[in-house]
Amino acid sequence: MGQSIFDIHLDYTGSCYRPSPAVRKAMEDSVDMANFYPYEGYFELRQAIAGYSHVKPENVLVTNGCDEAIALVTYLFGQRVLIKAPTYSEFERIARGISSEIRIIKGSIRDSRYSIDFSKKDLDWATLAWVCSPNNPTGDIIPREKILDFAKNAKGIVAVDEAYYEYCGKSVADMVDKQKNLIVTRTFSKAYATEGIRLGYVIANPKLISALSNSTQEFNVNRTARAAGIAVFKSMGYYRKSMASLQRIKNSFEKGCTNMGLKVIDHNSPFTLVLFKSEKERNYFHAGLEKIGIYTLKNTHEEFTGFEDPCIRIAMGTKEQMVAAKNALEKLSKAYKKE
Amino acid sequence: MGQSIFDIHLDYTGSCYRPSPAVRKAMEDSVDMANFYPYEGYFELRQAIAGYSHVKPENVLVTNGCDEAIALVTYLFGQRVLIKAPTYSEFERIARGISSEIRIIKGSIRDSRYSIDFSKKDLDWATLAWVCSPNNPTGDIIPREKILDFAKNAKGIVAVDEAYYEYCGKSVADMVDKQKNLIVTRTFSKAYATEGIRLGYVIANPKLISALSNSTQEFNVNRTARAAGIAVFKSMGYYRKSMASLQRIKNSFEKGCTNMGLKVIDHNSPFTLVLFKSEKERNYFHAGLEKIGIYTLKNTHEEFTGFEDPCIRIAMGTKEQMVAAKNALEKLSKAYKKE
Repeated sequence: MGQSIFDIHLDYTGSCYRPSPAVRKAMEDSVDMANFYPYEGYFELRQAIAGYSHVKPENVLVTNGCDEAIALVTYLFGQRVLIKAPTYSEFERIARGISSEIRIIKGSIRDSRYSIDFSKKDLDWATLAWVCSPNNPTGDIIPREKILDFAKNAKGIVAVDEAYYEYCGKSVADMVDKQKNLIVTRTFSKAYATEGIRLGYVIANPKLISALSNSTQEFNVNRTARAAGIAVFKSMGYYRKSMASLQRIKNSFEKGCTNMGLKVIDHNSPFTLVLFKSEKERNYFHAGLEKIGIYTLKNTHEEFTGFEDPCIRIAMGTKEQMVAAKNALEKLSKAYKKE
Repeated sequence: MGQSIFDIHLDYTGSCYRPSPAVRKAMEDSVDMANFYPYEGYFELRQAIAGYSHVKPENVLVTNGCDEAIALVTYLFGQRVLIKAPTYSEFERIARGISSEIRIIKGSIRDSRYSIDFSKKDLDWATLAWVCSPNNPTGDIIPREKILDFAKNAKGIVAVDEAYYEYCGKSVADMVDKQKNLIVTRTFSKAYATEGIRLGYVIANPKLISALSNSTQEFNVNRTARAAGIAVFKSMGYYRKSMASLQRIKNSFEKGCTNMGLKVIDHNSPFTLVLFKSEKERNYFHAGLEKIGIYTLKNTHEEFTGFEDPCIRIAMGTKEQMVAAKNALEKLSKAYKKE
């Protein structure tokens, strides 16, 4: 295989489609007021998020990316943090940063699906239990009843990272007023293609929102991000089309993977997880792709906590990029079988 | 006095001049990569800040506004926080948000200048002592020798908020490698007219920078803010001229204030502090300005901690706005004398 001229970055999400023209224009227009604090505040944006999420503006705090939401929840409630592996590593990383006690329940997707079964003892111990649904990187949805059971039984906070909410439509955000220890974190990065502007939000009952607000900055989201967020809700048609197109690209890519004998994990996300039989096989595919400029993430990457199954995570790119990736995988499959 | 058609906001800094054309262009150009995480990282920006601050890139952490810098320092070190009033309220606000113990040393500028004299006992008690230099809102510079003495005698961290550094050129940033418990926080908001993009930074020894980095997000500054920050250093000529122009506007405004018998506090900042004889007099001037659409901050505003002297803080606007403000103050002065 020859060296490709252009690198194809399928290691992080964020290359598949671009923000809507309305979002781009709003961002450009925001530059004009760059020398003024975002003194108008975030009510308009919180109101739009609330409408979208079927909650009230008082249930919403906007954050500097979903990662700030995760950090704020950890700062306030993360003395003892409970995590089920394999999952997104930010829950663990930020907890380590502030010297929390951390309990990671091991897990493998080799012989079963990713699921969470926190014990009563674990929930008694934790001041903060994380649920990632759909889970990064496995894409599994944690059933609503299970999450609400955790929250009912927990002594501390149960926080649900719904960064990939738009890929499944399943949420517990509507329960935050009833279940007072439940927190939901979300992002504009994934479905709304604005990774570079850092915009996320927390949904929780007003008392928790107020406590979280007091531990972040009055102006924690800049003018450009705020403008983009507001404009997203005026471009829903555009994003529906973009997401449908992503789904078609993904279906076709995964069908190709399955046809060539690769094991693809079911998921609700903008990426494909390929599970190999051994680390040797995984390394062969990962290095083979990288050699021709196609970058993917190994399970050992710092993006993940406790991910021991030999996998690569392939984020969706454009149609052309995914055809290139499929063809490369096909050549690698044939070559690997011959070895 | 008639109602003015346009409100003049002199309550917050940020209306006097605009970002340079190069900064605006960089911000607009950044929109093109909005759907990619700022995966290139912050090294280029940290390098530029380091050069500007006469330190190494390892001494620099970029933050989501100076307020995030203040928050991170407080999260990590703010179990017991020491503050000298009157000063910027963010030190206190964020400490309250995470339930720190707080000791505020009272102070008045009525009969003397603002100064800080932390006792040995206070420095033994505090895990974090704040110095704001130049101080917001008084503009006073805390002498370098005094700050270094605090740091030498302190059991905890001594953090110096140099948000207004560019208005005096005096800094202790060069001492962070020698004095390991010294932290400096700064902003692009004031001198570089980018309040709306939220960009600040911490200067400290590499060990502290690493600890602070671990308690914030990997991508805590968005593409637009990063692009603006890098472009600022390519526009230093523009900003020198802008700051010189601000200084002329301010000198002329303050001369006018003094001529009409108002007491103006000396300062190194983009605002003017007017000290009145009574709260009644202060309210008369503050309300009188507001009535014609000129907004200023009273000492009782939430921007300040422990500011009991009857003052208004007037941020610099354009030449035309400051002439309007001066004329309005003159009318109010004459009217107040007649009462």
